Amino acid sequence: MEEQVEMVGRAFVEHYYHLFDSDRSSLSSLYHQSSMLTFEGQKLQGVDDICSKINQLPFDKCHHLISTIDAQPTSSYAGGIVVFVSGSLRLNCEEHPLRFSQMFHLIPTPQGSFYVQNDIFRLNYG
Amino acid sequence: MEEQVEMVGRAFVEHYYHLFDSDRSSLSSLYHQSSMLTFEGQKLQGVDDICSKINQLPFDKCHHLISTIDAQPTSSYAGGIVVFVSGSLRLNCEEHPLRFSQMFHLIPTPQGSFYVQNDIFRLNYG
Repeated sequence: MEEQVEMVGRAFVEHYYHLFDSDRSSLSSLYHQSSMLTFEGQKLQGVDDICSKINQLPFDKCHHLISTIDAQPTSSYAGGIVVFVSGSLRLNCEEHPLRFSQMFHLIPTPQGSFYVQNDIFRLNYG
Repeated sequence: MEEQVEMVGRAFVEHYYHLFDSDRSSLSSLYHQSSMLTFEGQKLQGVDDICSKINQLPFDKCHHLISTIDAQPTSSYAGGIVVFVSGSLRLNCEEHPLRFSQMFHLIPTPQGSFYVQNDIFRLNYG
């Protein structure tokens, strides 16, 4: 059970940042109408508002480098998973990467995959 | 609803780090048998293991300074809340604080308070 949660968390994180770095607009497949994103303190709800925020971020290219991934089941009955990520982010090929932390609360779908119910992102200022 | 979630998140964070900095052993009141802590990648489960880890951390005095608190409801039916904290941590009056990020998943109790179901802590290395 615990290993499976780790595996799902790791696979989700790789998939999420791969989509983010290669084609941000395709992230809409991972959010639902009930999803919430808090991005540097700004609150967004629903797949449309969340994806429009992500698509309008002021850079063309970015590359996420993951440092740590931690995952835990949220409760035995609902099958949810919380995933906590730390890493760095290189924008538009700039020299200095930015450190960030992000958490996701994933909920299983009837089709056997997961969607993002909660997403909180913060840059880590040194 | 959203304001209430913010208020609960903020009150919890203040209470949690106040207990941590003044009397770590009293944090046991905030965890249950089902609770999980991942501390710098080390996994602990249950109030006893979690509190023994926290009590044995190798410093006498510490002081948490909170930079940001973000909170979201996890779902409308269960009343849970995710809280994401960033801040810095000064150990044994050392000069240089350590940056950290931490997330909590709080679950309501029948008595109207909350306990920590999920807790993930990471230091942010620069």
